[in-house]
Amino acid sequence: MSNMSGFVGVHAGAGDHSDDASSAYKKLCRDACRKGVEVLKQGGSALEAVTATTSVLEDSPLTNAGFGSNLTWDGCVECDACVMDGQSLTWGAIGAVPGVKNPVTLAKSLCMRQSGSGLSMGRVPPCLLVGDGARLWAEEVGIPTTDPKSLVSERSRNIYNHYKKKLAKVQKKDINTLSPLDTVGAVCVDGQGHVAAASSSGGIILKHSGRVGQAAMFGCGCWAQEGKNGQSSVATSTSGCGEYLIRTMLAKEAAIDLMTADCGTTCLHGTMVNKFLDSPFLAGMPVRLGGVISVKCEEDGMGEFLWSHTTQSFCIGYMSCEDTTPRSHLSKLPRGMAPGTKAVVEGVGFSLKRGDPSNS
Amino acid sequence: MSNMSGFVGVHAGAGDHSDDASSAYKKLCRDACRKGVEVLKQGGSALEAVTATTSVLEDSPLTNAGFGSNLTWDGCVECDACVMDGQSLTWGAIGAVPGVKNPVTLAKSLCMRQSGSGLSMGRVPPCLLVGDGARLWAEEVGIPTTDPKSLVSERSRNIYNHYKKKLAKVQKKDINTLSPLDTVGAVCVDGQGHVAAASSSGGIILKHSGRVGQAAMFGCGCWAQEGKNGQSSVATSTSGCGEYLIRTMLAKEAAIDLMTADCGTTCLHGTMVNKFLDSPFLAGMPVRLGGVISVKCEEDGMGEFLWSHTTQSFCIGYMSCEDTTPRSHLSKLPRGMAPGTKAVVEGVGFSLKRGDPSNS
Repeated sequence: MSNMSGFVGVHAGAGDHSDDASSAYKKLCRDACRKGVEVLKQGGSALEAVTATTSVLEDSPLTNAGFGSNLTWDGCVECDACVMDGQSLTWGAIGAVPGVKNPVTLAKSLCMRQSGSGLSMGRVPPCLLVGDGARLWAEEVGIPTTDPKSLVSERSRNIYNHYKKKLAKVQKKDINTLSPLDTVGAVCVDGQGHVAAASSSGGIILKHSGRVGQAAMFGCGCWAQEGKNGQSSVATSTSGCGEYLIRTMLAKEAAIDLMTADCGTTCLHGTMVNKFLDSPFLAGMPVRLGGVISVKCEEDGMGEFLWSHTTQSFCIGYMSCEDTTPRSHLSKLPRGMAPGTKAVVEGVGFSLKRGDPSNS
Repeated sequence: MSNMSGFVGVHAGAGDHSDDASSAYKKLCRDACRKGVEVLKQGGSALEAVTATTSVLEDSPLTNAGFGSNLTWDGCVECDACVMDGQSLTWGAIGAVPGVKNPVTLAKSLCMRQSGSGLSMGRVPPCLLVGDGARLWAEEVGIPTTDPKSLVSERSRNIYNHYKKKLAKVQKKDINTLSPLDTVGAVCVDGQGHVAAASSSGGIILKHSGRVGQAAMFGCGCWAQEGKNGQSSVATSTSGCGEYLIRTMLAKEAAIDLMTADCGTTCLHGTMVNKFLDSPFLAGMPVRLGGVISVKCEEDGMGEFLWSHTTQSFCIGYMSCEDTTPRSHLSKLPRGMAPGTKAVVEGVGFSLKRGDPSNS
């Protein structure tokens, strides 16, 4: 018998969504959740569910991940992605990779190798591969690669041309206005209580070739860790300014804090204020834009899905195996609140039917 | 007036050094320390000192960093390096970079940009660049690049040929015997009490092209953080199996523990046992090889330089601005102790003449 319970949560980037675009983003989040729940219902693991969920987000031209990602200064798509398995605590990632259709699938392949036997001659399997070497690995293990140009969408080409033309004129604030979306990601807890998380990003518009962001940095793009001795099991995935998410290690910090928290909402707000907005690692930095989704689950199957952001808006979605339809939501900063100054936290509770471990 | 005080500590890799080779490694460590102290005496910062110190280690064909690094499966040199500044908490790194003579210099250039003004159009400067993109950045900022083939030494070519030939026959343990040295690194505290750390590595022999190790991962290759409210200022640099150092975030964990420790030796031993040898992040992993050097300094200028390793041996060196000659030492596991099972901790104390901040 397969494991028939579980919960999937996603985000499609913390940024500044127009009302016109929000319905398309919300539908995409629902589609992604539906895919993740389908994987769980077919007996897939939490790791498989977050990978499948994130692949749906990557395939959409709306998001800055996989197809349609932001272009580098040189006009190329170079993707970062990572996944983490909360049971084995293994992590796999790829950075600045050209020509891989679903970067998160390649990251999962590396993650899976971490807990298996080593390579020949005692070599340890890599947990982070970058650039052409990562693409070569994909070819070796049978993960689809493609002409790098095929990942450029009409929209991403237009955005690129716009910025290239306006180089001399564009003001700082326009960057956030016109290129609002960054990393996408997913978190999951399955019926056994196992957690996993994923993160995928095309990186910032006009980034330098070879730039790697939080989605390929351990502790920064996502985190998943099972609780021991009464701690909660927690998975997180972040979005926002990659370098700031790296410096603050926001994914890990949020997860570790939540594992021992009584009130998830209060805890996550504290993390966002003390370890992001007021972090000594961001001293002197301008507008601190970031977002995080998290799933926090107890041994009895009671859980919370929480999201927080300092950006103007944050598009999230969620679904449990018991739900017949996924939900999605565009969270916004209250009117009059400037992005990068306060953190909004929202969330929903859920209750999982616990699987029988003997059936897993 | 320049700042005339300070302390520099280095390592040339945790591994298994033969008695024949050890004198050459020890001399190299002393040469590197002498360079770092020279920089401090000329008024250089802690960050400048660790960069210059590490460059000396990179330039030696003895070490697996810069010139003479281990070759990848495809026979190329691809280097990782990072530096961290404890005052600004900024970090810069490069991964899997071909054709850059001193990778640590490139990492420093990225680190320096982190605390400065952003790029045009509000773009945030990258903290991690990889592959050819990183090499391109070096060219743009005037850091020497070279024909990637020129970084292959006769020794590294011989080691490569040896492994390629013996692929089918070589046993796991031989990897550790024959390719003992990994990352090099340096830590420094200057007369103002500012700390910095560096790490540089050619990565594991026959690594997959594009593989990035701990020396380009935040919190894993090095850490530097100034103490507040009576905490010690600490800098660390790690060596060993890159993937294990990533999973355990050993550089950061060791530093954070030391910042509030009364006894550095006891504290570092506890970190190595609880957060490396017994870490849940290494569950199921074979032989846990790692090493760390650290400098821990109090507000009154009293400090300790500590080193710890689980490998057969660990070559370290140190020097203060007051010393006329640098010291070096090959630390070894006690006879009969198997590598990867216990951690040795040793150290020395020092006392800095505190600089007058108004003269800095």
